[in-house]
Amino acid sequence: MSNSQANVITKASSNPKVSSGNYFEDFRLGQVIDHATPRTIGEGEVALYISLTGARQILHSAEPVAQSLGYKGRPVDDLLAFHIAFGKTVPDISVNAIANLGYADVRFLHPVYSGDTLSTRSTVIGLRQNSNGKSGVVYMRSVAINQLLQPVLSWVRWVMVHKNKLEAPAPETSIPNLPSFVAAEELSVPSFLDARKFDTSTTGSEHLWDDYIVGERINHPAGMTINDSDHTLATKLYQNNARLHCDDVMMKQTAFGRRLVYGGHVISLCRALSHDGLENALTIAAINAGTHCNPTFGDDTIYTWTEVLDKWAIPGRNDIAVLRLRMVGVKNMPAETLATTHIENDGKQTYHPNVVLDLDYTVLMPRRQG
Amino acid sequence: MSNSQANVITKASSNPKVSSGNYFEDFRLGQVIDHATPRTIGEGEVALYISLTGARQILHSAEPVAQSLGYKGRPVDDLLAFHIAFGKTVPDISVNAIANLGYADVRFLHPVYSGDTLSTRSTVIGLRQNSNGKSGVVYMRSVAINQLLQPVLSWVRWVMVHKNKLEAPAPETSIPNLPSFVAAEELSVPSFLDARKFDTSTTGSEHLWDDYIVGERINHPAGMTINDSDHTLATKLYQNNARLHCDDVMMKQTAFGRRLVYGGHVISLCRALSHDGLENALTIAAINAGTHCNPTFGDDTIYTWTEVLDKWAIPGRNDIAVLRLRMVGVKNMPAETLATTHIENDGKQTYHPNVVLDLDYTVLMPRRQG
Amino acid sequence: MSNSQANVITKASSNPKVSSGNYFEDFRLGQVIDHATPRTIGEGEVALYISLTGARQILHSAEPVAQSLGYKGRPVDDLLAFHIAFGKTVPDISVNAIANLGYADVRFLHPVYSGDTLSTRSTVIGLRQNSNGKSGVVYMRSVAINQLLQPVLSWVRWVMVHKNKLEAPAPETSIPNLPSFVAAEELSVPSFLDARKFDTSTTGSEHLWDDYIVGERINHPAGMTINDSDHTLATKLYQNNARLHCDDVMMKQTAFGRRLVYGGHVISLCRALSHDGLENALTIAAINAGTHCNPTFGDDTIYTWTEVLDKWAIPGRNDIAVLRLRMVGVKNMPAETLATTHIENDGKQTYHPNVVLDLDYTVLMPRRQG
Repeated sequence: MSNSQANVITKASSNPKVSSGNYFEDFRLGQVIDHATPRTIGEGEVALYISLTGARQILHSAEPVAQSLGYKGRPVDDLLAFHIAFGKTVPDISVNAIANLGYADVRFLHPVYSGDTLSTRSTVIGLRQNSNGKSGVVYMRSVAINQLLQPVLSWVRWVMVHKNKLEAPAPETSIPNLPSFVAAEELSVPSFLDARKFDTSTTGSEHLWDDYIVGERINHPAGMTINDSDHTLATKLYQNNARLHCDDVMMKQTAFGRRLVYGGHVISLCRALSHDGLENALTIAAINAGTHCNPTFGDDTIYTWTEVLDKWAIPGRNDIAVLRLRMVGVKNMPAETLATTHIENDGKQTYHPNVVLDLDYTVLMPRRQG
Repeated sequence: MSNSQANVITKASSNPKVSSGNYFEDFRLGQVIDHATPRTIGEGEVALYISLTGARQILHSAEPVAQSLGYKGRPVDDLLAFHIAFGKTVPDISVNAIANLGYADVRFLHPVYSGDTLSTRSTVIGLRQNSNGKSGVVYMRSVAINQLLQPVLSWVRWVMVHKNKLEAPAPETSIPNLPSFVAAEELSVPSFLDARKFDTSTTGSEHLWDDYIVGERINHPAGMTINDSDHTLATKLYQNNARLHCDDVMMKQTAFGRRLVYGGHVISLCRALSHDGLENALTIAAINAGTHCNPTFGDDTIYTWTEVLDKWAIPGRNDIAVLRLRMVGVKNMPAETLATTHIENDGKQTYHPNVVLDLDYTVLMPRRQG
Repeated sequence: MSNSQANVITKASSNPKVSSGNYFEDFRLGQVIDHATPRTIGEGEVALYISLTGARQILHSAEPVAQSLGYKGRPVDDLLAFHIAFGKTVPDISVNAIANLGYADVRFLHPVYSGDTLSTRSTVIGLRQNSNGKSGVVYMRSVAINQLLQPVLSWVRWVMVHKNKLEAPAPETSIPNLPSFVAAEELSVPSFLDARKFDTSTTGSEHLWDDYIVGERINHPAGMTINDSDHTLATKLYQNNARLHCDDVMMKQTAFGRRLVYGGHVISLCRALSHDGLENALTIAAINAGTHCNPTFGDDTIYTWTEVLDKWAIPGRNDIAVLRLRMVGVKNMPAETLATTHIENDGKQTYHPNVVLDLDYTVLMPRRQG
C-alpha cells in the first residue's frame, strides 16, 4: 500500500536508552529482525475488533458455525491478526520512514485462535538508495508465527527510510522479484475446512462463489463514521506506536493538521462494510496489493465498493473457491455516487480526492453443491 | 418502545447481491425468519459492556457472588444479551422501517453465559396496512436461543414499514393480543437460584424487596454523558447495522442533523445509573412496555429516576420477589429537577422534551429472611 | 497523590435508598468498610486496558514470556488491577471528598490473573478535623484481596471530606506514621519469579538494571492524545463512579467547565509512554508517593519523562533488582521541552502549569547475568 503521507520527522531523544529506530544505512541485505513484544490475543481483542469495526463475518462471529466448517473454534478476524502482527514491526521499520510505499504477497497461512501468541520476524530482502543520497527504499519480508512456531501470516512491504549519516556508502541495489498476486495453488486453504454443508441461513445470503461474475461491481450501501477515539483505540489495541496516529500536538505542526487514521483501520472498516453483498466471503486468503490513496481523518465517513476481478477454482476442492476482489474505500460520499477511482488532472489520471483505499485481495467462498 | 425518529430512506443498491431488506408487502402472517449471523458472546463483550455503560449490577460483576446464588458463573448482563439478540433482527425487519412503534412481552428466559452463541428467529404475528396504502405495521415475535437450543429471550415488537410496490394488495388485518405486562407467575425465575443467603455487603445496600413501597420515586443522582464514539462502539458491538446510528454523512441530510443514539444504549445507561438506590435488583425478569420519547444524540447527558409501580411475591418462593418499576430517562437535566414526564401542550399531554425513555419493567430482588 | 481539583458538591437525593456517602463525622478510627461490588477481571479487561492506554509491557502482553519467568499465565497489568480495586472505594470514601490529598505505601503484593475476582476493604487509620470545623482529613488503609482471600494490593490514601453536621464533635486527632517509600526488603518479589533466563529480544531493549544510572533522565518521545470517550470508557471500566469524570452537565457548572480525566488514567498513560526507554521494567513493585499536579481534560496530549531516583539490590536475588523512578507527566508539550517540574511564582516554587503528574514508584527489572 503506497502511502505518501508519512513524512513526519521528530527529534530522537538524547538518552541512548530510547531507541531512535533504524535509518536506511542501518539495514543490510539478508538482515533478520526479531520484533519485540510478542502478543497474546484473547477474547477481549475479538470483541473489541467487532466493536471498533462492526464486522459481521460469520466465521469470526459464531463459534458453532466455525466448528461446523472444521475449525477448532472461531478464528480471530484475519485483519485483527494482521494488524497485531504488523504493529510489531513499527518500532524497528517505520519510525524513520518517509512513506509506506507498498505491500505485496500478503498471505494468511493458518488460523489464529483466541489464546494464541503472535511474534513477528522480518528479513531485509531488498535495498535501493535514492538518487538524492538522503534516503532509500527497504524491502522487508515479515512472517508472524504463533506460540507453536507455526507461520500464520507473511507479507512483503517496502518503505522509504531516511538516512541519518549521509556519508554512509550506498548499498548495492537489490530489488526483489515480487508476485503481482498470490495464485490459487499457492493459497493456504485449510485441509480441515469442509464447506460442503455450509448453511447459508447463518449468513443470510444465498449468493455463493458460482453467482459472482467477473467484472461486476457491488456498491455496499452502509457508511461508517470514524471518531478520533475509535481509530486511536484500534491503533493502541494493535500496539502500533506510530506517533502520527496518536499524538495530536505533533500532528498539528504538520500539513495534515491532525492525527491520521491508521491505514489498516480503513481496510478493516471497508471489509466490514463490504459484508452486505459478500456475506459468504468466509475468510481472506491473500492481499495482492494495495494503496492508501488519500489520508483519512477522524470524522470522515467511509463507504466502499467491490469489483470482482477474477474467479479461481482451487485444485482438488469442489466445496470452496476463490474470488479475487478489488475493494475501494471512499470517504464522505456513498460508493454509488462515484463511477471510477481516478479522475483526469492536467492530462494525468490521479485518484479522486475522496478515494482512500484501493485494495486487491482474494477471499475463500463456498461453492454451490450438487 | 415507540419511536417516531426513524424515517430515513436511502437508495437500495442496484446490485441484487445487496439485500434491500423486506418491505411491507414482503411479510406474511405466520412467516418465520431465521436471522443471520449467530453470535458467540465472550469475556470481551462482558468487559466492553461495563466500559460502555458503567454497569455495576453484582450478578454480572462478580463470579463468586453469582455462584453463591446458584449460577454456574456470572451471567452476562441481561441487556447485553438483549441488544445482541435484537441486533440480529435489524437487517430483515428494520431496514425499511419508518418507525419502531413498540415493544411488549420481553421475557428473560434463561441466563446467558460467556461462551454462549445466540441466534434469533422471528415470526410475523400481525399485519395491518395503513389507510394511506403506502406502509403498514408488522408485528413480530422474536425468540433468541443459545447453542443448546434453549430459549434465552423472547419479545414482541411492532414496526411501521414502507411498501415498495404500492399496488400490492393489502393483507387481511390481524392484530395480536398482547399482554400489558408479564405477570409474576409467568416469569422465568431460575429454579437453581437461591437468594436466602444473599449477602448485601456485596452490593453495599441493605434495602431489600420488603423495603420498597409502591408509589415511591427514586431520583438516581448520577449523570452520564454520551460521546459519539461510545454509542457507536456499543451499536457496532451488537452488530446492529441500522445506518442512522453510524453514518453521519447520511444523517446530516435529515432533520436530526447527526447520528442518533441507539435506543437500547439509552436503556442500558439508565439501568446502570439506576444502580444507586436499586443495588439489589439482581436481574431483569421482563420488560412490559417502553417508549423512546425523544431522540438522544452524542454529547447528551443522561439521568434517570425510578418509580415503584408494583410489588409481587413469586408463587412458591420466599427468597426472592418481583418489583415492577418505571424507569424514566432524562437528558441534560438531573432527574430531581423534573417532577413529571409529561407537560401540557396546546391542551394535550405530551412528553417533556428532555424525557428520552419511559420503560416499564420488572426485576428480581431478594426478600428479607427470617 | 494530592489533588486540589475535586471540590464539587451535589445535592444528595432525598430518597434514603440512595446513599449519600460518608461525611467526616461518619468515620471512626479503626472503622472497617467492606466496599461493594467485587469484580471479576477477565480477558476483556486485559484487552481494553491495552486499547485504552497502548501499554506494551511484556509481562502483560505475552503469555509465553510470563510463563517462562515462572508466572502461571500473563498477569493483568498492575495498574489495571489497582484502578479496579481503587474504584471500589469511591462510593464510600470519595463521594463527599473535597480533595484526594495523597497516596502512600502502595504495594503490589500478588499477581492478578484473568478470572480473578477482587474485593476491597478499607480501615480508617487516621482522622484530623480541619480548624474551620467544616471538614476533616480521613486516612484509610485499603487492601484488595482475590477470591482465594490472598491480598493482591494494599495502599494508604488520605482525603479531605466535608462534614454534614457541623455540630458533630471533632474526633481526637490521629495521624498515621507513613513510610516515605517501600524499601527493597519489604517488596513482594514473587518467589516463583526467575529472571535469570530473561530474553531481552522479547522487549527489544538490552538495557537491564545494571545499565541505569542514578540521576539519569529519560525523555520518552511519544505523546498520547486523550479523547473524552477514552477516559470515560476507562473510568467506567473500573466501575469508578466519581461523577466529575462522567457528568459533563454537572462539570459545566464548575470552574473546570468540563469533565476531569480520572487521575489514574493519566498514571496509566504515562506508564505506557514510558515503555520506550524502560522496556525491561517488568512490573511495578510499589508506588511511594504521587501528586496530580494539575488537572487533565479531554483533548490534552500526555508526554512523560522518567528520572532514576535510586537502584536497589534485592536481598537473596541476583536475577532481578529494583529501580526507584520518578515519572513526570506533562500535558501538551513534549517532555524534552521542559527542564524541571517546578517554576518560580512570586518567590515560591510551584508546579509548572503543564505538569500533571509527579509519581515516585519502584519497578522490578532483570539484572545482567554471568
